[in-house]
Amino acid sequence: MAQHGTLDFMLGAKADGETILKGLQSIFQEQGMAESVHTWQDHGYLATYTNKNGSFANLRIYPHGLVLLDLQSYDSDAQKLNQDSTGRVKRLPPIVRGEAINRYWPTADGRLVEYDIDEVMYDEDSPYQNIKILHSKQFGNILILSGDVNLAESDLAYTRAIMGSGKEDDTGKDVLILGGGDGAILCEITDQMVIDGCKKYMRKTCGDVSDNLKGDCYQVLIEDCIPVLKRYAKEGREFDYVINDLTAVPISTSPEEDSTWEFLRLILDLSVKVLKQDGKYFTQGNCVNLTEALSLYEEQLGRLYCPVEFSKEIVCVPSYLELWVFYTVWKKAKP
Amino acid sequence: MAQHGTLDFMLGAKADGETILKGLQSIFQEQGMAESVHTWQDHGYLATYTNKNGSFANLRIYPHGLVLLDLQSYDSDAQKLNQDSTGRVKRLPPIVRGEAINRYWPTADGRLVEYDIDEVMYDEDSPYQNIKILHSKQFGNILILSGDVNLAESDLAYTRAIMGSGKEDDTGKDVLILGGGDGAILCEITDQMVIDGCKKYMRKTCGDVSDNLKGDCYQVLIEDCIPVLKRYAKEGREFDYVINDLTAVPISTSPEEDSTWEFLRLILDLSVKVLKQDGKYFTQGNCVNLTEALSLYEEQLGRLYCPVEFSKEIVCVPSYLELWVFYTVWKKAKP
Repeated sequence: MAQHGTLDFMLGAKADGETILKGLQSIFQEQGMAESVHTWQDHGYLATYTNKNGSFANLRIYPHGLVLLDLQSYDSDAQKLNQDSTGRVKRLPPIVRGEAINRYWPTADGRLVEYDIDEVMYDEDSPYQNIKILHSKQFGNILILSGDVNLAESDLAYTRAIMGSGKEDDTGKDVLILGGGDGAILCEITDQMVIDGCKKYMRKTCGDVSDNLKGDCYQVLIEDCIPVLKRYAKEGREFDYVINDLTAVPISTSPEEDSTWEFLRLILDLSVKVLKQDGKYFTQGNCVNLTEALSLYEEQLGRLYCPVEFSKEIVCVPSYLELWVFYTVWKKAKP
Repeated sequence: MAQHGTLDFMLGAKADGETILKGLQSIFQEQGMAESVHTWQDHGYLATYTNKNGSFANLRIYPHGLVLLDLQSYDSDAQKLNQDSTGRVKRLPPIVRGEAINRYWPTADGRLVEYDIDEVMYDEDSPYQNIKILHSKQFGNILILSGDVNLAESDLAYTRAIMGSGKEDDTGKDVLILGGGDGAILCEITDQMVIDGCKKYMRKTCGDVSDNLKGDCYQVLIEDCIPVLKRYAKEGREFDYVINDLTAVPISTSPEEDSTWEFLRLILDLSVKVLKQDGKYFTQGNCVNLTEALSLYEEQLGRLYCPVEFSKEIVCVPSYLELWVFYTVWKKAKP
């Protein structure tokens, strides 16, 4: 495992690169580090220092007063970088690299975030995706599918939101749940390996429902949901609630060409077909910052086989580290 | 502004460093980058590449198959690093460095997290601390005191939790709030500059209460709370609720020597003194992962002038990106 530490200095814009370099060189030379300097005509300096123990540092001096120090050390003591409390020096927690336990799982809107992962519970490749269940000290076990955080044991808020945020009385009602093993982006086949992993390591989330495919008032079908939906539509079967936990709103923004959008419209159409006139369809959308993708999704809602209306809610799902949008869709009342 | 991108490869443990280097060298040489190689006896290779435009790359090849690539480019197009979907290659969002708008605000438990900051609303140094209010696309304006995220416009959950999580009926009750301008760690003086900043940029959080120090049923005192508490205690004044929004539980773990812990016990003692027999004291504690600090805090609760009991709750405050512990404390019932 290597640690990559950074230290950033903002010096005055008129700072002279050569003077800065001379001033900082001694710090590394005192450590017995070998030095190699590259000089640009208009772009400042890069001094590279190597230590006998395999660590190295880069000192990049830009012409306008920005000085960036990178220090990479391997398998060693915590990095000791001077801390300056003037505020002109920025030091971030070092990035741990090459470790078996990966702590970094970027958000949907592309931000770098580090989790408190201390154990890998499950890590398998199914035919459809990579499935990890990692343990976070604060969030409990987290299900990560192909690098996307899906659900952690701390995330009751997600389940609550996708069931109508406590506003619904589902007693005695007919509910259809699509996904719910936390299926893949393309749900042609629900991934048995996801269900297997969650059954063992996410029991706080799924309880014992995955142990029995059939219960007093529920039945779990592990198959392609599209043919099932088509069959229900043909039979005229209708539900009070349809909950879509299959696929996030695609990040792609070319709805005509992208098969994920076509797939999404198909699911939407079929779901609304099997929805009672006064039924409700719930789904999770996407991160609140992906405004284009969310707009496109809402556009799709206007293109279904029958007119629908929708509302949305911004929800804080603890393990996501970003706010998430959930949708409620229903058939427009007949005049 | 510079961007620092990383690409990490895990190759087989028996991978030969020299062969790897030869294989990757051409990528950089094709770009017309100058090369400089350092070889260790037992620690692998470091190849440094510099580009005419001021960007540079480090290729660090470790003896056991870990290959780390760092690429630093300045003021330029987004970095284009090859994406490999095998999963053996880890690529994180590049770290932006030296930019006026700082996106990185590490959590209390030391994790690196990036925020979606797009504007600096307020940035002042008071005599006591640095005060920033930064705008986040999803969390709204965020108050950051000396580098610690305090409260964002999205964080109703914080206010709710520190008021008893909806379990209290405070109608007609006497409430004492300590802090509430989001005071500093040592609250000897409430920072007028914090109040000023929030009054302007955090109105979603504070409404108009900071505009008027006195209202029909409230009064704001901008002064050292310790003498006020002592005065109330002397007068025998008691409150139904005391809400402490002054100081997080100190991270230090030497309660005898650290003045922050003494200060904390002082505040606790005084607050409980002015609490009715059936009154409640609310406070925020610390991040859920800082278990030692939390234990020490709970130990302090056992050392007050009179016996108390307490409960705690783990709360998800949206902008914190970490779960937070809140405490409720009350006087032990007299036998």
